[in-house]
Amino acid sequence: MSQPTVKIGLLGCGTVGSQVVRLLTQSRDDYEARCAAHLEITGIAVNNTKAKRDPWIDMSLVSDDANAVIDNADIVIELIGGVEPPRTLITRALSHGKTVVTGNKALLAEHGPQLFELTAQYDASLYYEAAVAGAVPVVYGLRESLVGDRILRVQGIVNGTTNYILDQMTNEGWSYDHAVEVAQELGYAEADPSADVDGLDAGAKCALLASLAFHSRVSMDDVTIEGISKLTKEDIADATACGQVIKLIAEAARVKDSDGKENISVRVAPMLLSDDNPLYNVGGAFNAILIDAEAAGRLMFYGQGAGGAPTASAVMSDVVAAAFHVAHGGSAPRESTYAKLPILDADQMTSAFRLRLEVDDKVGVLHTISGIFAEHGISISGLSQQSDNGSLATVTVTTHETTEGKMKELIEDLTQTSKMCRVTSVLRQVEK
Amino acid sequence: MSQPTVKIGLLGCGTVGSQVVRLLTQSRDDYEARCAAHLEITGIAVNNTKAKRDPWIDMSLVSDDANAVIDNADIVIELIGGVEPPRTLITRALSHGKTVVTGNKALLAEHGPQLFELTAQYDASLYYEAAVAGAVPVVYGLRESLVGDRILRVQGIVNGTTNYILDQMTNEGWSYDHAVEVAQELGYAEADPSADVDGLDAGAKCALLASLAFHSRVSMDDVTIEGISKLTKEDIADATACGQVIKLIAEAARVKDSDGKENISVRVAPMLLSDDNPLYNVGGAFNAILIDAEAAGRLMFYGQGAGGAPTASAVMSDVVAAAFHVAHGGSAPRESTYAKLPILDADQMTSAFRLRLEVDDKVGVLHTISGIFAEHGISISGLSQQSDNGSLATVTVTTHETTEGKMKELIEDLTQTSKMCRVTSVLRQVEK
Repeated sequence: MSQPTVKIGLLGCGTVGSQVVRLLTQSRDDYEARCAAHLEITGIAVNNTKAKRDPWIDMSLVSDDANAVIDNADIVIELIGGVEPPRTLITRALSHGKTVVTGNKALLAEHGPQLFELTAQYDASLYYEAAVAGAVPVVYGLRESLVGDRILRVQGIVNGTTNYILDQMTNEGWSYDHAVEVAQELGYAEADPSADVDGLDAGAKCALLASLAFHSRVSMDDVTIEGISKLTKEDIADATACGQVIKLIAEAARVKDSDGKENISVRVAPMLLSDDNPLYNVGGAFNAILIDAEAAGRLMFYGQGAGGAPTASAVMSDVVAAAFHVAHGGSAPRESTYAKLPILDADQMTSAFRLRLEVDDKVGVLHTISGIFAEHGISISGLSQQSDNGSLATVTVTTHETTEGKMKELIEDLTQTSKMCRVTSVLRQVEK
Repeated sequence: MSQPTVKIGLLGCGTVGSQVVRLLTQSRDDYEARCAAHLEITGIAVNNTKAKRDPWIDMSLVSDDANAVIDNADIVIELIGGVEPPRTLITRALSHGKTVVTGNKALLAEHGPQLFELTAQYDASLYYEAAVAGAVPVVYGLRESLVGDRILRVQGIVNGTTNYILDQMTNEGWSYDHAVEVAQELGYAEADPSADVDGLDAGAKCALLASLAFHSRVSMDDVTIEGISKLTKEDIADATACGQVIKLIAEAARVKDSDGKENISVRVAPMLLSDDNPLYNVGGAFNAILIDAEAAGRLMFYGQGAGGAPTASAVMSDVVAAAFHVAHGGSAPRESTYAKLPILDADQMTSAFRLRLEVDDKVGVLHTISGIFAEHGISISGLSQQSDNGSLATVTVTTHETTEGKMKELIEDLTQTSKMCRVTSVLRQVEK
């Protein structure tokens, strides 16, 4: 039986790339049966100083000439990471009508629209299952499985590093700084952990999730991002006392703005979850995406969000689909962005909040504070006061749903105009 | 902009069918943008006595001539259920090269291979996301998202009726009979509940999951099935006392038989789960599928397993994919069964078990019983005895992993040759 041959070029061969080569080499028969084509790795481009030398890698294929690897391939797998050189290399591949598979969330969140325009212009294809939540097939889930439905909201735990740090703060009572140090020692966090702890990695994934869910172009700049670096032991203790946990949540929702017009609300922030939310139990390296859809109701996808082999599994699902299409002329999946929904202004986003305030321990202070909330039109759902030793007291206030804008004004008012009050913690609550 | 028109014919218009019409009617613009084609419902075939008369259904399209509806359509959606007439009708559609979307698990589990052969013979297509676990996109998950991986095991809660019954027995202390009665009153269970409680519905889904996971033909007859009707209050109480729950689990696993050859183990049975298994928390109407894959590790898909709107969401995801392919000539997904793995003999399937025995309360009885286990080569992991009033005692034995065959022989031996012992409960434990 004569089968077409599909030539595969790999850009980058680190932890994930090496696993891709392993899978392609060790399970070649399976893959070839699945896409009814011969699969041939025709080149592996690496920066020489970073070449992985695992036993399954044929070193004769390795070179430092990425352009040559691209030009000789039907499918280009980009696993270098970061914006450059991947942007230049992928642009070259797409401009030659090639199929690109990438796990590069930062590049897509920043330059996705331009790259997708190239695919349309040059009849090329761009696959990126590995760019969001590792092995969790949420890109397929949103693009294919839920294409028959109307997505209302996506909420996800999409960054394993911060999930590990928050787990350790919760379960072991560690401080934020200590948890970050240990995460760095274990290799979970980078030497400069900011991409993770400042929520930038989650923000990039959130932009991709929102684009897919709402058939609209959403870029990194559209996402309102708050990281976890300001969280304290007290925040964690408060959450625990209420039977809640704090998770870094990426959330994209279809909402109405103040004019009643449909918008996308898209943000990343540490949020409180109760145990009736399925994300409550998602610990450590696991990622999970909770989707609320009009007809399907609630769905959850759960799995390993990082690591060489899990991410390689996601890459290979794209490679098989791409190879089938390259070999047999089928229509590759394309980005669908016809809806073009606008992004909700951050100040209009809503949450219920929990605030912790440090106040002067004086008669009437609660009355004054609750008055300030009322002035701002923010309804209080719960309020408790605990006297510290001395002249200060800690007041915890939970609110009903309100907007970010109102909350911002309230906090300014509390801290600036009211001399007796210091806001020490502001957290949003995740709905059930 | 001139777009091709795709003609859709619907067979059956009950709970799910009516929701399909609603979605197609109310979200037509979205769907048409997603598949870049006009979608037109050209006919709805119903048995007149069963016609749903929801306001969004255009009654001028309704007829009782299913053949005419098929012949006039590009895509035929079959939502009648049961083996006949759907088998005859789908055969007609496929033999004319049409695309069929169905949610009919019973038909596929029984006659799937013949229908898939027709798709190859007549260049037709058959989609069936709605046939397994309602809105949970596990068919796409296994066929597309995990196509780059090697599946090791699939375990699922795929029948909401039995999950409800077991929930009520666990949480409310109801007897099996009472729980079934209430389920019938609430419309969760049929007047004849046997398809659910005897595990036949779960068995059909299990066959489909195994076929997809292992690229092999697995039919209903290959599945070893045990229902929930023999479960007692004592079984539930025992599980609760151990911090476990009993769930009806559909399981398909890639295993080695006694000759070291790869086989598929495929079964449905009530099993014990501990709270470290993600299926532990899946309650009521929700379904969940846990997948262990070589590279991806552990994944879970969770969502609503039944109901008109959730199932219609799954149907519509297939319709959009199918309409895109019909309109734009892309290659429709096909069944992939090249691997042709054999089915593991039921006696070779393995589990750890928990048995409850009623024994004569005599000196030495535990010694005798443990001796019988040893004779059969079954290793005991735990053993406890509780004296009843009078001359009997209850012995609970948990075992290490053993085969169904050995367990069967042990039970025969315990009940037949040993006069002093009655086996009152046999349950399998689900691994973490």
